[in-house]
Amino acid sequence: MKKACQAVKDPESMTYEGKFAGKKALITGGLGFIGSNLAIRLVGQGADVLLVDSLIPDYGGNLFNIKPIEDKVRVNIADVRDVNGMNYLVRGQDYLFNLAGQVSHIDSMQDPYTDLEINCRAQLSILEACRHNNPDIKVVFAGTRQVYGAPEYLPVDEKHLLRPVDVNGINKMAGEWYHILYNNIYGIRALSLRLTNTYGPRLLMKHSRQGFIAWFIRLAIDNQEIQIFGDGKQLRDMNYVDDAVEALLLAAVYEGANGRIFNLGNTPPVSLLGFVQVLLEVCQEFGAGRGGYRLIPFPPDKKRIDIGDYYADYSRIRQTLCWEPKVPLREGLRRTVAYYIEHRDRYWQSS
Amino acid sequence: MKKACQAVKDPESMTYEGKFAGKKALITGGLGFIGSNLAIRLVGQGADVLLVDSLIPDYGGNLFNIKPIEDKVRVNIADVRDVNGMNYLVRGQDYLFNLAGQVSHIDSMQDPYTDLEINCRAQLSILEACRHNNPDIKVVFAGTRQVYGAPEYLPVDEKHLLRPVDVNGINKMAGEWYHILYNNIYGIRALSLRLTNTYGPRLLMKHSRQGFIAWFIRLAIDNQEIQIFGDGKQLRDMNYVDDAVEALLLAAVYEGANGRIFNLGNTPPVSLLGFVQVLLEVCQEFGAGRGGYRLIPFPPDKKRIDIGDYYADYSRIRQTLCWEPKVPLREGLRRTVAYYIEHRDRYWQSS
Repeated sequence: MKKACQAVKDPESMTYEGKFAGKKALITGGLGFIGSNLAIRLVGQGADVLLVDSLIPDYGGNLFNIKPIEDKVRVNIADVRDVNGMNYLVRGQDYLFNLAGQVSHIDSMQDPYTDLEINCRAQLSILEACRHNNPDIKVVFAGTRQVYGAPEYLPVDEKHLLRPVDVNGINKMAGEWYHILYNNIYGIRALSLRLTNTYGPRLLMKHSRQGFIAWFIRLAIDNQEIQIFGDGKQLRDMNYVDDAVEALLLAAVYEGANGRIFNLGNTPPVSLLGFVQVLLEVCQEFGAGRGGYRLIPFPPDKKRIDIGDYYADYSRIRQTLCWEPKVPLREGLRRTVAYYIEHRDRYWQSS
Repeated sequence: MKKACQAVKDPESMTYEGKFAGKKALITGGLGFIGSNLAIRLVGQGADVLLVDSLIPDYGGNLFNIKPIEDKVRVNIADVRDVNGMNYLVRGQDYLFNLAGQVSHIDSMQDPYTDLEINCRAQLSILEACRHNNPDIKVVFAGTRQVYGAPEYLPVDEKHLLRPVDVNGINKMAGEWYHILYNNIYGIRALSLRLTNTYGPRLLMKHSRQGFIAWFIRLAIDNQEIQIFGDGKQLRDMNYVDDAVEALLLAAVYEGANGRIFNLGNTPPVSLLGFVQVLLEVCQEFGAGRGGYRLIPFPPDKKRIDIGDYYADYSRIRQTLCWEPKVPLREGLRRTVAYYIEHRDRYWQSS
């Protein structure tokens, strides 16, 4: 990893270790998948962590996610759409990890207004809350590769045009740009990481509307057949959640990231079929994965919003923050499957 | 003009003449600057025109704007944020010229939520209204060059990244993409024209918050001194409103424009100083323009959102729709100044 970040004079110094001790960190969406994994890491770093989550049914929030740290964090159940609540909650915080969002592309098409309220309007009001109540806070926003839509070229770097293919992508695009704007105009230090497909323990598993990864993992563990649309050759890059958390922490502590947008990503990209094959092999190590998989034709409504291959060029964050993913797919899936086999009943009812 | 559009097999055929006779056209923001000029042209083409406008004070709506056609159009005072109203009003329309918007960059920073409600949320609900009540309608959206922010290169083509520098630019970016999305996913034929600085009769003149052009024209007519920030060398391209109206009409009748985004623009670009000099000369033909101009230092808050030079590459619309601006700056300003000298009391109280 160190070789890769030539732009940094002293790569050894690029670390967040020790920098969060005694610092106050607010995580919106803190009971969700990435938020809870981040919280566990921050507690390990000695941070004073406040989790804000609305626990909207069918979103990602789950109190069990923070079981290992439940006595070491404060939990405030609140919705980021609540302007008055956010005005209060941002006060005194050193860091805001702004992860709350509506993340289902399907839901965004069925109820575009709710997606807009959470992914656009609430982002604006969170930033207004910071501006008026805590202008010295540092804000790390969880953006998404979804803003790019169907790639014009691969790998997709940050200079690729944004051409979102669903309401969620449009609203996340706006939400991201409010952050850049408030950095540039008001000096509220903020940046965006465009997360790619992220997987790991604590992913929502109750339904299939938040993407294929969680659903495939659930089916494989339950010995049910996985259905892959098309020929399964669509390429994706996937980050294990600990790697995404590393990026969030590095971005928080380095001022050089302010006002900027960074892709996360991974190499090499993996096909959906390749992912499923590794997943099934891993599950078989645990005595599961007996349902196998099947290729089925693309349903027309899915095909219309399919983006084909996607994988990112993440050299900007590699060069700026010395970040690179460390956990290979098979190892990440092993940790993920082990977690869900142990805690399955906290995430779904087995059929 | 005809030579320029080689991509079109029969450039002579590229006209909207005769294509609006008996057609029903709805214009949101229909009492505003561009909306009213468009309405006058559509009435001349024999269209059945319905104007929807909220007449929000300080926005652009002005009943006097439609004086020449007041008995030939229907006016419905309504706000595009009114979902139920829009659900009804889109029915039976062949065309929707979607021009309603909050257009003041300054206001968007002072009241970002209202900008969001009008430029994001209402756009979504207008498109939902079309989808559920009139999916065969054709929608022409008035986008803006403001979405580009400060140019990375000149002239700015449609492949330039969007990096908006104010809340208005972010919300207009989202509003535009809802249109492209509804075209692509739901087949609601829609497109966006990214208007550049547009000027002409019926521009709002009550205050200076909608841009420098109107304000400079007012000062020049009133024999007051024009203050130009910086050295006055900032380049802009400007379209006379009749040229913008031509583009809106061509885009409405040609299916090849659907789902696409087009810059408007003009050549050569003109400096702010050059614009003011022509304006003052034109005013002097009418016995006004005696206030002159003065260069003053950029106020820091303005400098922060100044975008430097901007002018567009508009070859995409030239090649696709054979559109080119026809009215030179001096001629456009002559028509504009003549209009305001005749009707000044309908637009502002002289000091």
